[in-house]
Amino acid sequence: MSLPTSELSAAELTTEPGAATPAAGATKQLIVQKFGGSSVADAAGIKRVADRVVAARQAGNDVVVVVSAMGDTTDELLDLAGQVTDGAPAREMDMLLSAGERISMSLLSMAINNKGAVAQSFTGSQAGMYTDAIHGKARIIDVDPHRVRTALDKGHIAIVAGFQGMSQDTNDITTLGRGGSDTTAVALAAALEADVCEIYTDVDGVFTADPRVVSSAQKIDKISSEEMLELAASGAKILHLRCVEYARRFGVPLHVRSSFSQNEGTWVLPSPDDKITIKEGVALEQPIISGVAHDRSEAKVTVVGVPDTPGKAAAIFQVIAKAHSNIDMIVQNVSTKGTAHTDISFTLPIVEGADALAALEAAQAEIGFESIDYNAEIGKLSLIGAGMRSHPGVSATFFKALSDAGINIDMISTSEIRISVVTRADLLDDAVRAIHKAFGLDGESTATVYGGTGR
Amino acid sequence: MSLPTSELSAAELTTEPGAATPAAGATKQLIVQKFGGSSVADAAGIKRVADRVVAARQAGNDVVVVVSAMGDTTDELLDLAGQVTDGAPAREMDMLLSAGERISMSLLSMAINNKGAVAQSFTGSQAGMYTDAIHGKARIIDVDPHRVRTALDKGHIAIVAGFQGMSQDTNDITTLGRGGSDTTAVALAAALEADVCEIYTDVDGVFTADPRVVSSAQKIDKISSEEMLELAASGAKILHLRCVEYARRFGVPLHVRSSFSQNEGTWVLPSPDDKITIKEGVALEQPIISGVAHDRSEAKVTVVGVPDTPGKAAAIFQVIAKAHSNIDMIVQNVSTKGTAHTDISFTLPIVEGADALAALEAAQAEIGFESIDYNAEIGKLSLIGAGMRSHPGVSATFFKALSDAGINIDMISTSEIRISVVTRADLLDDAVRAIHKAFGLDGESTATVYGGTGR
Repeated sequence: MSLPTSELSAAELTTEPGAATPAAGATKQLIVQKFGGSSVADAAGIKRVADRVVAARQAGNDVVVVVSAMGDTTDELLDLAGQVTDGAPAREMDMLLSAGERISMSLLSMAINNKGAVAQSFTGSQAGMYTDAIHGKARIIDVDPHRVRTALDKGHIAIVAGFQGMSQDTNDITTLGRGGSDTTAVALAAALEADVCEIYTDVDGVFTADPRVVSSAQKIDKISSEEMLELAASGAKILHLRCVEYARRFGVPLHVRSSFSQNEGTWVLPSPDDKITIKEGVALEQPIISGVAHDRSEAKVTVVGVPDTPGKAAAIFQVIAKAHSNIDMIVQNVSTKGTAHTDISFTLPIVEGADALAALEAAQAEIGFESIDYNAEIGKLSLIGAGMRSHPGVSATFFKALSDAGINIDMISTSEIRISVVTRADLLDDAVRAIHKAFGLDGESTATVYGGTGR
Repeated sequence: MSLPTSELSAAELTTEPGAATPAAGATKQLIVQKFGGSSVADAAGIKRVADRVVAARQAGNDVVVVVSAMGDTTDELLDLAGQVTDGAPAREMDMLLSAGERISMSLLSMAINNKGAVAQSFTGSQAGMYTDAIHGKARIIDVDPHRVRTALDKGHIAIVAGFQGMSQDTNDITTLGRGGSDTTAVALAAALEADVCEIYTDVDGVFTADPRVVSSAQKIDKISSEEMLELAASGAKILHLRCVEYARRFGVPLHVRSSFSQNEGTWVLPSPDDKITIKEGVALEQPIISGVAHDRSEAKVTVVGVPDTPGKAAAIFQVIAKAHSNIDMIVQNVSTKGTAHTDISFTLPIVEGADALAALEAAQAEIGFESIDYNAEIGKLSLIGAGMRSHPGVSATFFKALSDAGINIDMISTSEIRISVVTRADLLDDAVRAIHKAFGLDGESTATVYGGTGR
């Protein structure tokens, strides 16, 4: 049903316009490389990353490196905070946590300088990462990397602290929250008009399903930003939604690859017109289905007995938005009571559940609903593929496979390139394997699974 | 010979203009408090400091706190650096080390907020500490604490990172080097026109000699900036020379006191006209002699066979200055060879010895001297007292005491309020005790010696 991507696993890939590390005589590129905390967990890791960075520079490229805090630093800082306070002001917590990247980036810079290249490290504010003032989950509102550009113009390697920025209004230090370092890397790549943003992780790339659940999952060689967005939104952990959104919006090609090997990883390409070509020049058809994602991090909230009058649903979602919760799927049930009331169900991250429930309860009288149900024992499965919009029968195959596997469906949502369902949490793995198989994604080889999460 | 300062030990002291914590109904003051790394070495220490800060705020004062990095943080960061590089660029080392205060200041701010007061932490650059670009030992060239002032105007406590600033030319993070946090505190106190700058340490104040050497040393209740400057320059570790210089220049009253007790410490007053008064209003005479300081951190360099022509001494000291070494005592020997050559001896910090020697050797041909002698086995003893300028006989007593104790003198230097001699390092403690006794500084009680250095 799809062109098996595993056929490409040994081929050397380039993109048009070329975005791989140039060979001798090839065009000089501007490469942004992002390394997570597990890659720089200790001195040995930092030196390994330094080797990689220096190699990219010596190949003739301009190199910008975005780095997270060293392995356990963030946890250690949070532990210290817990020892002195019951609840830290968010501004001070951001100040504390931002020390983490300051340590890793200056050490990486030292290690690179020690290898004979010249590197300079820059904090988020020095790199011009301007954000709003929502501490702990700030959003980037402007990027002005003129100091990074100046360093590159001098032939230096620029090391930039991931995850952090400075509030444009208050000049306070902010952190970007989850996926922050990836987002820093993509935002810098966009502002610098980089040729590629390489996201280094501890797996070989993006897989057709989580290899820990589906052992026959295959590495995807190329995927569109659009599909990667749906995969990330659907629970694929390898890239954060924000980073993919940013890359798509600004046309930044991403290359997700392992920091433990020289293998090509997965290219995430912003335009559907970008073609990945194997060496002989044969362009690949876009496969119909890219992969299966799953997610256990959400809970389902049902607001029961909402008056069926205009504005009530909006009122509910305004309350949730004010609590800074991110709603995912929404279903408005048809009222079966014959009354002028309805039920509204939605999913949201479990970690945001308590705040959202508190906000809803505070607004209960005003909105006039009857009660709230909360269920964290759910799982979400999503099938993603840009090809499905032009191929009929995908839905039929999808629901038949789940039915054959005896999986009950609780909620459904679809986009042009995605079908998602909510099931019981304990049935989720079975559901993922059934769908992966039904769409011909199973490969012959067994995927290598590394430890850790790469974040 | 001097009014024993020990008579005041139990008296409650104030200064004119009053600079102690105001009692109920007293005038509101602006207090800068500086806590060193040993005071905030762990969560318990941070909470203790928070109590002290909150008490000063609740007494109605405006409070600014300058804090060093937690106990071992700097050593841990240096150790990490040593694992990734043989020699870090100074810019990157400053970036790394500045993470230390970022951690301690945000934790202290959290601890204060947790006690119900409102605190905000500020990095060196946020607090407007502008420096030159000499990384590792930057000098403050401007202080613009408008963000600190704004915080105070809102009734908040401002926590400021000691030891660090931002280069005005390059916008890079700098560190101030030794004594940096004390200097930050005094510079902020000056810019904010604070009523007092309290330097918290692990001893009760400034003593007439190092209590570890002279067990009968007594706490000094009041000392002029001028004398404190000589004491600090002569090796008294409790306050760094830079901080005292800064305080004297800008007229900032210092109060050196213990973070482990509520006792009054030592007041260092910028103007000789400032009087310390005991409660009954009896003003104190300035004692003739304030104290005895000693120093083992210097080495003696002798440049042998310097051509006795104009400009040669200047050439030597220009070479040393370019190596950023700080020369202390200088003696030009009378040439005994009957030739047109002379020897020039000087002392400098042992830690700067290697750089200075290398610089001199590089300039040997140009200057035309014969050889260099280097001796690190020396000690310096200094007697300080503003009263000595109007009291004859001090020198006679001084040299007789050393002679009686069988101490040979190697170099001598004097100012209006100080006599310093260089002796063999192994005779230094005996010399200190002999001088302390000869000038009637011995008290009846034994000084309490706490562990640690308070830095």
